[in-house]
Amino acid sequence: MRPSGRALDALRSITIETDVTKHAEGSCLIKCGDTHVLCTASLEERVPPFLRNSGLGWVTAEYGMLPRATTTRNRREAQAGKQSGRTQEIQRLIGRSLRAAVDRPALGERQITVDCDVIQADGGTRCASITGGWVALRLAVNKLMKAGDIKSDPLLGNVAAVSCGIYGGQPVLDLDYAEDSSAGTDANFVMTGEGGMIEIQGSAEGATFSRAEFNALLDLAEKGVAELVAAQNAAVGG
Amino acid sequence: MRPSGRALDALRSITIETDVTKHAEGSCLIKCGDTHVLCTASLEERVPPFLRNSGLGWVTAEYGMLPRATTTRNRREAQAGKQSGRTQEIQRLIGRSLRAAVDRPALGERQITVDCDVIQADGGTRCASITGGWVALRLAVNKLMKAGDIKSDPLLGNVAAVSCGIYGGQPVLDLDYAEDSSAGTDANFVMTGEGGMIEIQGSAEGATFSRAEFNALLDLAEKGVAELVAAQNAAVGG
Amino acid sequence: MRPSGRALDALRSITIETDVTKHAEGSCLIKCGDTHVLCTASLEERVPPFLRNSGLGWVTAEYGMLPRATTTRNRREAQAGKQSGRTQEIQRLIGRSLRAAVDRPALGERQITVDCDVIQADGGTRCASITGGWVALRLAVNKLMKAGDIKSDPLLGNVAAVSCGIYGGQPVLDLDYAEDSSAGTDANFVMTGEGGMIEIQGSAEGATFSRAEFNALLDLAEKGVAELVAAQNAAVGG
Amino acid sequence: MRPSGRALDALRSITIETDVTKHAEGSCLIKCGDTHVLCTASLEERVPPFLRNSGLGWVTAEYGMLPRATTTRNRREAQAGKQSGRTQEIQRLIGRSLRAAVDRPALGERQITVDCDVIQADGGTRCASITGGWVALRLAVNKLMKAGDIKSDPLLGNVAAVSCGIYGGQPVLDLDYAEDSSAGTDANFVMTGEGGMIEIQGSAEGATFSRAEFNALLDLAEKGVAELVAAQNAAVGG
Amino acid sequence: MRPSGRALDALRSITIETDVTKHAEGSCLIKCGDTHVLCTASLEERVPPFLRNSGLGWVTAEYGMLPRATTTRNRREAQAGKQSGRTQEIQRLIGRSLRAAVDRPALGERQITVDCDVIQADGGTRCASITGGWVALRLAVNKLMKAGDIKSDPLLGNVAAVSCGIYGGQPVLDLDYAEDSSAGTDANFVMTGEGGMIEIQGSAEGATFSRAEFNALLDLAEKGVAELVAAQNAAVGG
Amino acid sequence: MRPSGRALDALRSITIETDVTKHAEGSCLIKCGDTHVLCTASLEERVPPFLRNSGLGWVTAEYGMLPRATTTRNRREAQAGKQSGRTQEIQRLIGRSLRAAVDRPALGERQITVDCDVIQADGGTRCASITGGWVALRLAVNKLMKAGDIKSDPLLGNVAAVSCGIYGGQPVLDLDYAEDSSAGTDANFVMTGEGGMIEIQGSAEGATFSRAEFNALLDLAEKGVAELVAAQNAAVGG
Repeated sequence: MRPSGRALDALRSITIETDVTKHAEGSCLIKCGDTHVLCTASLEERVPPFLRNSGLGWVTAEYGMLPRATTTRNRREAQAGKQSGRTQEIQRLIGRSLRAAVDRPALGERQITVDCDVIQADGGTRCASITGGWVALRLAVNKLMKAGDIKSDPLLGNVAAVSCGIYGGQPVLDLDYAEDSSAGTDANFVMTGEGGMIEIQGSAEGATFSRAEFNALLDLAEKGVAELVAAQNAAVGG
Repeated sequence: MRPSGRALDALRSITIETDVTKHAEGSCLIKCGDTHVLCTASLEERVPPFLRNSGLGWVTAEYGMLPRATTTRNRREAQAGKQSGRTQEIQRLIGRSLRAAVDRPALGERQITVDCDVIQADGGTRCASITGGWVALRLAVNKLMKAGDIKSDPLLGNVAAVSCGIYGGQPVLDLDYAEDSSAGTDANFVMTGEGGMIEIQGSAEGATFSRAEFNALLDLAEKGVAELVAAQNAAVGG
Repeated sequence: MRPSGRALDALRSITIETDVTKHAEGSCLIKCGDTHVLCTASLEERVPPFLRNSGLGWVTAEYGMLPRATTTRNRREAQAGKQSGRTQEIQRLIGRSLRAAVDRPALGERQITVDCDVIQADGGTRCASITGGWVALRLAVNKLMKAGDIKSDPLLGNVAAVSCGIYGGQPVLDLDYAEDSSAGTDANFVMTGEGGMIEIQGSAEGATFSRAEFNALLDLAEKGVAELVAAQNAAVGG
Repeated sequence: MRPSGRALDALRSITIETDVTKHAEGSCLIKCGDTHVLCTASLEERVPPFLRNSGLGWVTAEYGMLPRATTTRNRREAQAGKQSGRTQEIQRLIGRSLRAAVDRPALGERQITVDCDVIQADGGTRCASITGGWVALRLAVNKLMKAGDIKSDPLLGNVAAVSCGIYGGQPVLDLDYAEDSSAGTDANFVMTGEGGMIEIQGSAEGATFSRAEFNALLDLAEKGVAELVAAQNAAVGG
Repeated sequence: MRPSGRALDALRSITIETDVTKHAEGSCLIKCGDTHVLCTASLEERVPPFLRNSGLGWVTAEYGMLPRATTTRNRREAQAGKQSGRTQEIQRLIGRSLRAAVDRPALGERQITVDCDVIQADGGTRCASITGGWVALRLAVNKLMKAGDIKSDPLLGNVAAVSCGIYGGQPVLDLDYAEDSSAGTDANFVMTGEGGMIEIQGSAEGATFSRAEFNALLDLAEKGVAELVAAQNAAVGG
Repeated sequence: MRPSGRALDALRSITIETDVTKHAEGSCLIKCGDTHVLCTASLEERVPPFLRNSGLGWVTAEYGMLPRATTTRNRREAQAGKQSGRTQEIQRLIGRSLRAAVDRPALGERQITVDCDVIQADGGTRCASITGGWVALRLAVNKLMKAGDIKSDPLLGNVAAVSCGIYGGQPVLDLDYAEDSSAGTDANFVMTGEGGMIEIQGSAEGATFSRAEFNALLDLAEKGVAELVAAQNAAVGG
C-alpha cells in the first residue's frame, strides 16, 4: 500500500498551466501532485563563446528551489555563495535531456535557457522540471516559428521524465517524498515521446537491485512517460 | 496621463492569496498589478548567536528574484556566487520594516524568516514584499498563538509599504515599471496601520526635489498604505 | 542634554584637509568630530561597458572601513571574501548622491571613482563620505578643467549630507556614535548647495515617527547642510 | 574496429599497485590503460556532525584531476575557486557507490575519506576511481581490523565500475577517450562482486537508445565488472 | 646617483607618529619618505582554536592597501572577493617577523592583531609595516602592562625591517618606488634591535646576484635597521 | 645526529624520472627522499593580456598538494574555494625562480605553465618543485626547439633549489620533515648552475640567526645545488 493510496503503476495527478508569466518567451507551472515547478524558457540571440560562428544553437537549463519549498527551510544558495553539488547535477541533467530533442543546426545561433524553479517540493522535482521544461521550450520555439525567425522545427519530439523505485519491496511509479525517502532503489528515466531512452539513472539505497527489478522499473517508466507526453501535448495544444 | 490609465492617486489592483504552500508556517502570493511576490514565513525554535539567552525573538527577511521575473533574463545570483548590493539592500529593508512591528520579548527566543521571492516583476517589488511579507508573518504568528506557544500577540500592528514618485511632473501613487524607469523622483514609504512612519527613502533621479513635492508624495503614501492595510486585514481575516 | 554637550542644532567641528595624498587626482581628509574619512577621486579615461560610445561620463564610489576604525576590531572585508550588505548599501548611496550633481555629457567619456575609507569612526560615516567625497571630486574636476581637457564645468553644484535623529525625545543635528546607538529615529539627508533634496532616508528604531517629527529633522538638516557646504567651499577655495 | 584494436568485449589492461604512499591508511595507483588514478583512503576517528552519537560510520569521496592530466591543460579548480559541476557529480557518485558496500554500524563512528586524483586521463576516470577507491578502502579497513579496532568486517563485498557504450553502432566495453568522445551512448555501471546493481547511469549522446541496446551494454558490464573484481582481489590478496 | 639624491647608505626620512586613532590599544602612522602606513594593534582576550588552553598568546598581522595608495588605482580586494597572493605573502611575513620578538607564554592567552594599512605607497611598504607594526604592538603591550594584566614584558626587543638592492650597479639602502621598479636585485631584511636576523628575502630581478653583492646589502641593512630601531625607541619613549 | 642518519652536508637520495605523462610537453617525477613531486610543463601559443604584442614569452607556475600527501589529511583547496596563502607564496616563488633562467624574447609570444603537484610530502616540497619544474621546462623547450619553432635556446641555464637549516645547533643540508618541524632556522636557496643567486629566503624559527650561521647555510646550499644540477643534467641528457 502506497502512502498516497495510489496504484503501483499510477502517476500523481498532473496539471500543466501554460503562459504563466508575461515576460518569458515560453512558460508553464507544472504540478505533479504536491511538487510544483515554475518553468520558463528565455530566448537570446547569441550563443556561448564555444559556439560562435558554428551555425549551431544551444539549449541549457538552470534549477533552483525556493528556500521554503521543503518541509524545513533550506539555506538560499545565493547566500551560501554557491550552487550545491545536487543543484548542479540536476541542472546538468535537465539541460542534457532537453538538448537530446533539439536539432541544433535548425535552431541556428540562438540560446534558450530553461529555468526550473521549485515552488513546492514533494519528491520528483528533477523529473517534473524536465517534463515542464520541455513545455516551456516548446512554447518558446513555437513563438520563434510563428514569427518566421526559424523555418524548420528544431524540436525533434517530446522529452519527459519520471522516477520509479522499489518501495516496500514492490516496483512503483512516480515516487512522492514519503516513498522516495524510504525507497530501496530509486531511478529516474528520461525518454522521448517515441519511447527512446535519453537518460537512465538508477541508484541502490541500502540493498542492491537486480536486473529483473530494474526491468520492472523500466516497464513502469514507459507507461508513465507515455502519460506525461500526453499531458504535455494537451498543454501545448499539440 | 499614466501609462496604465490609472488616476494619479490610484493603487494598482491588489490581490493577496494566503496559504499558498503547504510547508511554510505562513504564506501568501501578493499581486500588485503585474508584480507578483511569493512570501513565506518560516518558524524556527532558535535564534541567531547574538540573541541566545536574551529572551528576545528575531524576525529577518530574504529577497530573491527568479531569473526571468524581468523583461530580459537576469543571471541567477546563486550562480554568480553572491547576492547583489541591490538584493542585500532590499532584504535589509524588509527585515528592518517588519521588526518595527514585532514585540520581541513577546515572541520569545524564536526566529521567523520571511522569504520574498519575486515571480514576476513590474516595479515596486520591495514594497510588495513588505506588504505581503507582513501577511505571511501574521499567519505564522497566528499559528503559534493558536497552538498556545505564545501568550500575548507579538505583532504590534500592520506594516505596509508603497512607492510614490514624480512622473511627468506630477506626484503619483504606486509606480509601475514603465513609470519607475522614467520617474524624476522615486520614494518608498513604510508605515504602520496607524500611519506611523517606519522607513522613508526618497531619491532624486535627474532633478532634485523640493520639500513641497516630498510632502505631496507623503500625502499619497498615506492614502495608499491605508488601502493596503485594508487588503492585508481582509486577507488574514482580521 | 547631548553626550557631547552640543546644542541640539549644532554640527560637530568640521575640518577638511585637501590634497592629502600625492597620487590621487583629488583628495581630502574630512573630520566630522571623531569621524575621519579619507576621500580620493581617481580619474580614468574610460567608462564602464554600458556607457561606451555614449558620450556620457560616470562617477562611482566605493566605501571601506579600516578594521580598527571602530571600538572593537571588525573583520577585514577582503579576508571575509565579500563586502557586507551595509558596505554595498553605503557605497551605492554615495555614488548615487554624487552623480546627482554631475552633468554627464559635460564630463565626457571618463570615469571618476571616489573612494571613501574610514580611518576612525564615531557615527555618521556615510554622511562624512558624501561631504568629503564631493570635495575630492571637485578637486579632480578642477584639475581636468585646468588641463583644458573639459570645456564646461561638469559639476552642477555642491552635494553634502548630514544625519539627524530623535535623541532623548528631541530632534538633534549630526548624531555621533553615542547618540546614534540609542536614537529613536535616525535619518540621513543629502542635499545640494541650493537646498534641493537628493536623498532622504529615515528609519524608526524602536518607536515609529510622525510627520511633525520628520519635518523637524528636515529643518535641522537644511541648517546643517548649509554649514557643510560653506566648509566645502572654504576647503576648495570656492 | 575499435581505435585501440581491442575486441568489443575487452577491458583495457588493468594494473593496481597498492601501498603507493607512505602516509595514507590505504592507497593504490590504478591504471586502466592510459587512465591513471591515485586513490588514497584516510581514516579519521570522528564523523560529520549529522552522525555524532549515532554509532554509525561514514565513507565519503573526493575527486580531482591534475591540470595536465588531459590533452590540453585544464584550469586548476583551487584557482577557479570552486569545484566544477562535473567534479561534484563524480565525487558524489564515488561516495554513494562505496557506501553501498559498507556496514556502517560495523564501521563505528569513524570516517574514511577516499581521494581519487587523476594523474593521467584517457576516458573512464570515474569508473577507475570507484574500482581503485574500493581497493584503497579495503586496505584501510584491513589495517583497522588488524589493529583490533573493529571486530567484524564492515565491508560487505567488492564494488567496481565500468563504462560501456555504443561506438560505431556496436556495443563495446570500457570506452577509452577516443571512443568516449564520439560514442552514441555512454553508460556507467557500478556493481558488487556478486553482480548486484549499485548505480546505473546511461546517457544518449546524439541519438537515443533502445532497451535492447541498453541490455547489451548491461551484458558487457557484467563481464567487465567480474574481471575488475578479480583484479581487485588479486591486488589486495583476497 | 639615486633619483632622490640620497647617499647610497641613506634611509628616507622617518617619522613615527603614535596614538593616532582613539580606538586601538596601540597605533602609529609611520612615514618612510612618501610611503605612509597606518598601523594599529588590537587586543583580544582570546586566542585562535589551536591555542586554547595552551597558556600561549598569539600575534598576527593583516595588511591592506587603500585603492588609490598607488600611482594608478588598484581594485579594492574586498570587491575582488579575495586577498591577492602578494597581500597574503606580506601579511604572513609581518606576522612571522613580529612573533619572533614575542615571549608567548609571558603574553598569556591573548591575541594581538596588528593591522597595517598603506595610505600612500612609494616602495618598501612591507618593511614600513613591520617597523611601524612593532611600534603599535609595543604600545598595546605597554597598556597591558600598565593595567597590571601582564607581569613580565612579553616583548623580547625591537623588530625592524628595511629593503636594500642593487640599483644602477650599486648597493643602495631603502629603495623607493623609482628604484625598486628598476633594481637588479631586491632584498628585505628583518632584524632585531641587537642585529639578530629574523627574515632575509632576496630576489634577483633580471640578473642573478653574487655572495659579495649579497654581503654588501646585508651591511647596508644592518646600518639601516639600527637607525630604524632608534626611531622606534624615540617614538615609544624607550 | 640527523634523524635520517645522513651526514650534515648530505642531500637525500634524488631520482628524476622524465616523460611520466603522455599529454604534457615536458614532465618528470622528482623524488627527494620521501618527497615526491609530479612536474609538468604545458605549452600554449598565447600569452597573458599584459604581454600581447610585446614579443615576450611567459613562464608561470602553479603548486598543489594532494590531500593525503601529508601525515594527516589536508582539506582540498578546490573545496575550500581558494588557494591558501602558503600555496600562493610557493607558486609565486617557483614561477619567479624559473623565469630568472628564461630569455623571454627568445621564447617568443608563448606561455609555459609549470604545474608542480606534491604526491607525497616529507619536507622541502617547494625546493623539489623548482628543481623538478626546471626539468619539465627544459624538456618542453627541447621539444619546441626540435620542432624548429624556436631558433635560439630560451633557457639560459639550470635553476635548482635546496633548503638548509640549523638543526640541533648545527647547519645541515636538505631538511626533511622531521628536521624542518624542529629546526631553529630554515632557509631556501634558489641558484643557477653557475652558482648565481636567484632567491634567498631565510627565517628564524624561535631564536634569531647570525651572519656567520647564515654563511654556513649558504656554503651548504652551494654544495647541494651543484649536486642537484648534476642530477638535472643527467635526467635531461644534458
